[in-house]
Formats: sequence, C-alpha cells, structure tokens
Amino acid sequence: MFQFLAIPSISTDPAYHESCVQAADWCADATARHRLRARVEPTEGKPMVLAKWRDPADTNRPHVLFYGHYDVQPPDPLALWTASPFEAQLVDDAQHGQVIVARGASDDKGQVMTFFQACRAWMEVHGALPVDVTVLLEGEEESGSPSLAPFLGTHGDALKADIALVCDTGQWDAQTPAITAFLRGLAFSEVTLTGPSRDLHSGIYGGPAQNPIRVLCQLIADLHDETGRIAIPGFYDAVREPSSEQREAWRALGFETDKFLGEIGLSVPAGETDRSVLEQLWSRPTVEVNGIVGGYTGPGTKTVIPSQASAKLSFRLVPDQDPAKIIDGLHRFVAERSPPDVDVAYGGEGGSPAVGFDTNAPAFRAAAQALEAEWGKAPVIVGCGASIPIVESFRTRLGMDALLVGFALEDDRIHSPNEKYNLSSFEKGARSWARILGALGEQDARR
Amino acid sequence: MFQFLAIPSISTDPAYHESCVQAADWCADATARHRLRARVEPTEGKPMVLAKWRDPADTNRPHVLFYGHYDVQPPDPLALWTASPFEAQLVDDAQHGQVIVARGASDDKGQVMTFFQACRAWMEVHGALPVDVTVLLEGEEESGSPSLAPFLGTHGDALKADIALVCDTGQWDAQTPAITAFLRGLAFSEVTLTGPSRDLHSGIYGGPAQNPIRVLCQLIADLHDETGRIAIPGFYDAVREPSSEQREAWRALGFETDKFLGEIGLSVPAGETDRSVLEQLWSRPTVEVNGIVGGYTGPGTKTVIPSQASAKLSFRLVPDQDPAKIIDGLHRFVAERSPPDVDVAYGGEGGSPAVGFDTNAPAFRAAAQALEAEWGKAPVIVGCGASIPIVESFRTRLGMDALLVGFALEDDRIHSPNEKYNLSSFEKGARSWARILGALGEQDARR
Repeated sequence: MFQFLAIPSISTDPAYHESCVQAADWCADATARHRLRARVEPTEGKPMVLAKWRDPADTNRPHVLFYGHYDVQPPDPLALWTASPFEAQLVDDAQHGQVIVARGASDDKGQVMTFFQACRAWMEVHGALPVDVTVLLEGEEESGSPSLAPFLGTHGDALKADIALVCDTGQWDAQTPAITAFLRGLAFSEVTLTGPSRDLHSGIYGGPAQNPIRVLCQLIADLHDETGRIAIPGFYDAVREPSSEQREAWRALGFETDKFLGEIGLSVPAGETDRSVLEQLWSRPTVEVNGIVGGYTGPGTKTVIPSQASAKLSFRLVPDQDPAKIIDGLHRFVAERSPPDVDVAYGGEGGSPAVGFDTNAPAFRAAAQALEAEWGKAPVIVGCGASIPIVESFRTRLGMDALLVGFALEDDRIHSPNEKYNLSSFEKGARSWARILGALGEQDARR
Repeated sequence: MFQFLAIPSISTDPAYHESCVQAADWCADATARHRLRARVEPTEGKPMVLAKWRDPADTNRPHVLFYGHYDVQPPDPLALWTASPFEAQLVDDAQHGQVIVARGASDDKGQVMTFFQACRAWMEVHGALPVDVTVLLEGEEESGSPSLAPFLGTHGDALKADIALVCDTGQWDAQTPAITAFLRGLAFSEVTLTGPSRDLHSGIYGGPAQNPIRVLCQLIADLHDETGRIAIPGFYDAVREPSSEQREAWRALGFETDKFLGEIGLSVPAGETDRSVLEQLWSRPTVEVNGIVGGYTGPGTKTVIPSQASAKLSFRLVPDQDPAKIIDGLHRFVAERSPPDVDVAYGGEGGSPAVGFDTNAPAFRAAAQALEAEWGKAPVIVGCGASIPIVESFRTRLGMDALLVGFALEDDRIHSPNEKYNLSSFEKGARSWARILGALGEQDARR
C-alpha cells in the first residue's frame, strides 16, 4: 500500500501523466498476485485497470464489479503538509490510534486496498472468491472522468455484472459503518473575463478603465441572494424537497453541526439560512468558487488594472438537475451581467447528474447485514454531498445499480494537506468486504 | 542607455535586490562621466544615487535637485512581450517612427537619461552647467518608496535646492509638451480572508462551509455603488469639486475619450457615470483591485473550498484626502461586512497624499517658456492620475516645490508588456532639459 501511495498519480495535472500510468501498472500487478487476470487498457486519457476472477466450476455465480480510482488530487498547498505527501507515514493519532498520512491514503488508494485485502484473504483461505469478481480502476476520477463513458461504451460486455461495488465513500463515524444511498451530481466551468487589451497603470487609467476583477467579483457576489439561495433563474426548477420521513430520519441521526464545523475551524453554518446542515449536504444543490486569480499576485505592490481575471466554479447537483442545463443557466446569467468592453470565455466544462438507490434491493440488504455482523451495529443509510460520476454511468450505460460502501471518515482531510486513513478503517474495511463478498455469494443477486 | 535598460532592477521583488544595487552603481558611474561628484548611499532598502555639480566661481547660482528612479515594475506577464523585456530593442513604429522597447524604457530610465544627456551637452559645450545641480535617484519608486522619508530626514541639507525637477511625467501628445501641476495620491492595502482552517472538499462541505472567495468577492462588489461612486463611508469627505474654470480649461483641451479608451481596447468609460474621463483622472479618487487570488488556480479542476483568499487594493487620492484615514475607512468597511468565522488580515499598507502646484512661480514660467522654444508651442498644464510620493516629500520635508516635466506618451505601455519610449521623446526631451536648465540659470529661482 505504501508503494501505491508513493506514486504521485495526479490526473488533473498533465505533468504527472507518467505517474498515472505507473499507478495503473502497480494495480494490475497487485490484483494479479491475488490470482485475478489483470490487464491495463489504454484510453484517450489515463489507462483503465481491468481484472477478473471467474469460478471455473460454477458459471452461475453472482458477479460483482468493483470500482475504484488510482488517481489523486494535487497535494498543494505543499507548505501545509507535515511530511512529503507521497512518502506515506504511519502516525500515532490521539483520537484515532495509528493513521496512514499521505495524499490518496483515504481518497481512494486506501479504500481500494481494503478490497484487494479481502480478495487476498478469501484466496488464501479458500483458494477461491465467493462471487465472480471484475475489478475496474480508473485514473481520471479527480479530473471529471472524460475517458469513462467511451470506455464503458466499448467494454460494456466485459464490465456488466449483477451489481457494482463502489468504495469511494465514508463511514457514519469511527465506530459506525454506512451505506450511501444518495450522491450529489456535479457541473463545473471556468469563467475568464477580459477587459482592457493589456494590463494598465491604475493611476493613468484608474477610473474610466473597466477592471475585469471588479466585474468578476460582482458576478460571483450575484450568484447567491441574501438567504444563500442561488440566484441563477431556473436553477431550482428540477429540485425536489426531501419528504418529511426523510427529514425525520436525518433528524434522528443526531448530526452534530458544532462538531462538523468545529473540525474545520468554523462555528456558524453558511449556505441557505433556512436549511439544516445535513439537509444542505444531502438534498440541496450549491455553487462554489474553487479558485480565482487576476492581476498581480506576487510579493509587494503593483498598481495595475489587469486585462484578465478568471474563476473556477463548480455546482453540486441533486437528482433531476441536468448538468448541461445548469451550465447553460450560468452562461445566460453571466451574459446578462457582463458590461460593455468585457469579453467572456469558458473553459474546462463538464459534469454528471446526481443519483439515488433502492435501499430494499437484495444486495443492499445483504451488504447491510454483513456490515452489522462486522461492526456490531447496523450501517446508517446516508447521502453524500460529493459526486461519483461512475455510479451514474453504471446505471445509465450498463443498467447496473451500485452498492456504495466505504470506510473514510469526515476528518480524513481528503483533497487537503495531511490527508489520512485510519489503520482501523483499513483493517475493518478489509474484513467488511470479506463479509460482504461472502453474503453476496450466499444469495442470487440476479433475483 | 541600453546597458541601463538591461539591468532588471525590479524593486518590488526581493529576488532582484542585487540588480537594483547594480542599477544604482551604473547611474553613479554615468553621472561621474559627466563630471558630477557621484556616490551611492545605502538605505534600509535599495540604495540612493546622489550626484552633485557646483560652480566653483559663482556660489550664488540657482540650485536644482533632479529626481528620478532607477527601479522598474515587474515585467510579467512575460508571454505578452514580443522580445525579452531586459534586452532593449530599437523598433520602427508606424505612428511614432523609431521607439525603444524595454521594461523601464519610459518609466523611468529613459526619462532619467534625457536629463543625463542635457548635462553632458552643457558640459561638452560650456565645460559647466548653467545652474548648480544635485541628482537624486531612488530605487523604490515602484514599491512605495519606504526608504525615502528616512533618507530625506538624514540627508536634507545635502538635498535642499531652490526647486526640484521631477522627470516622471508625460507630454500632452507626441507634438505637445506638458507641465504637470497636479498629482493624485495613493493608498494601498492587501486584504487576506481566512475561513475554514484548511482547504475543504466542496462536495463534502459545500453549502454549510463558508467560502472566503465568495466573501471577498462580495466585499469587492460592495466597494462601489451602482453609479460608480466608492461606498466606503466618509471616503469623499475631503474631496473638493473642480472649479468651473478648471472644468472649462479641461474641456478646451479637446480630450479624445474614444482614442484614449480605444488604445486600450475599451469603448465605454467605466467609473463614475456622471464625470468626464479627464475629470475622473485629474480630480476624482478611485479604488482598484490590482490583484486577487484564492483556491486552486492550476490546470484542470479541483473541487475545493479554499481556506484563504486575498486581494491587493489601491486607492488613487485627490488633495486633502489623508491616506491613513482612507485605509482606516477600508478597515471599518471590511469589518462591518465580515461574516462570522472569517478572519481578516492586512498587509503591505502605505500611501502618499495628492499634491498641486503654483503655476505662476518663476521657475514654472521659465520652464514653460523653454519648452515652448523647443517644441514651437506652449506646454499644456495638466494633471496626472498617478502618484509620485517624492513630490509630496520634497514639499513637506524640504519646503521645496517641484517642476514636473516629462516626455512619456499615453501609449508608452508603462507597467505593461512591450513598454516603449519614442526616440523623439528621448532626443527632444534631452534638448528640452538643456533649454530648461539654461532658462533657470538666467533667473534667480530664490527670488
């Protein structure tokens, strides 16, 4: 696992393409060691890892497709890491005992390793797996998964299974497992505004010259109204209110807002003023500015009016919101507010819709029982504010539902400096998968 | 001059400190070649260049202090330069004939060289200068001149003259000289907002977590009202309206707004909707965002809610506005608008007030006549939207008025890529200084 974490497989930065290829090869070798037939499949972008095990004796076994990703987020800001992000450390943590600290320790390399461990255990003890298994690992989950749709199109037959197992989600808390039944979707865009044809001296031109930073800030300020709702016309058209049962179930979870915010240095919920934190995260769409830059940002002062300013925006979506429609709405919103002499350009756009699952499906119930056996308490059925585009693709392209089980914790600092994964998450995660595979093997998931 | 332009004396970036020292030494050597007694004086920051010539025969000569600066703005964005910014090129320009292209060609190295040339000419022809001359060149004009006030304090006696000659301004147009009688002041500050204690995953925290980019954009949007006025309470308290005579004189100049904006790729005046462009530039204060940065700004997407966002702000001030009061007003304005969980920090603050001159002073009139003799038309008496902190310091600390004559043109692209200085500005500029020195020598500037 530490070898795997040592590979800087940052898919969003072209400079790390070779590292992504190296991570794919590492995964293929690892699954081959557990007696799966593994190969690396090239794509237009990062390669896919495909590994299979079939029971030669029983051709009528349930068949699961395990999905994970070997790519990671950029580690910056590097200065905030206590150790090199790609030299994994086993660190004693007052709250969690031993934790593995590295970029990707939790998202998603550590989680992938829990499944590899479960397969190894079954192989070592029984010389076989309890179900037929196909493993699919992609290398573009952190950069919009551009190659996934075409790959599913060309390799659908090789990937079709009774159910997908997706290990990119979290527990309810360190002692309580969870199954994720709802995922927010995503739509993203980079907006670049150009005003003057060149950077200007703010003394000689300040006043009459249009400043694109000022225009961009006004646009971003206008995105929300004073109640925290998104002001783009039609943005909420497809958004359904959660049922009173759903709201009640969420209340019953006893979610600790103070603790949730306290862990990230905050105390007052932002966002929509009339919604609970859990309601916002699991049932409400958002827009965030993920990055902004314009003008002089080096040391000292430079009294310049810049020619350009740009911002990276991303929307979190709920079921029935169409990412393409959301991006169109953004374009109209910006166009209506762009003053004369300001040119607008868009880049890096894409997205995926939100999804929800049937919690009464046999595989869903079998997995819930397996988790209860391992953890001594029933898993909490939760939503997740984040997107996993593959889940929607499995459903629409392969007609396959997914079982979202993972062992990450809220404080794993994924996408942030000093990302960690509890050693207990790794160990009990592997045991949980061993039980889930066993439970799925005892039933016919095709029924 | 090309040697001088080859030195990357960027004062705002500590990486170029040695280049600044090198530029100071170069200037000392150059003045020494023209028989001035030159030395380089260390300061807490960049060194000062001090050079003197006194008439040994006549101890009752008028005495002028020539001021310029050897430091330059950073050249970025480098990609937009057609040649290396520190390898000066002589380029044929359709509109201007031959032009010198380099960072500092116009601001201020080229302008300094016009005075050196005039001194050389007087020395070669008469073996003497028509007035006693002290030259003071600083290396921090582009970074707020932090060392100037202390230096004037300790070297006041060595610097005190009858009048200061400041060559950091422009002509009215390529055929018409100008004397600047009014300069806007400056106040600047960098605002940094901190929200979450670390960068967050926008899916897992998006909604309830405060995004400092969003807060910063709202603050910046609030700085102006819908008429383009600055919304900071009390900001305009000390601002005087221009007299009707002044407005009339400005109208009479036939300023071409379309040409002025057209040269920078704009067509519609921004800023205060009820003020002419010239009125805005010469009589109205402004606030500009010179730079903004926060979150992920690299290639691709990173769905992060950043911990921090910051912006560099600068105000252009008019007479009687106190930079310290303006900065205080900004602090109050931001404090009133900062939501819970957002910490505000300020850095790199400073400024200097605006100034205006008596256009009937003898030296002012003598210089006007000298310029008319060289250019064949009387100089236009103009204001300047930019600040020259030294001018205020000369007045308050040395009780010395300044004569602001320069040969830069509106389209010199100072502070921008491909900065240029017309060869004609250089040549006629040098001739103009020769005439001005002669004219000042014929009168007693102390009367």
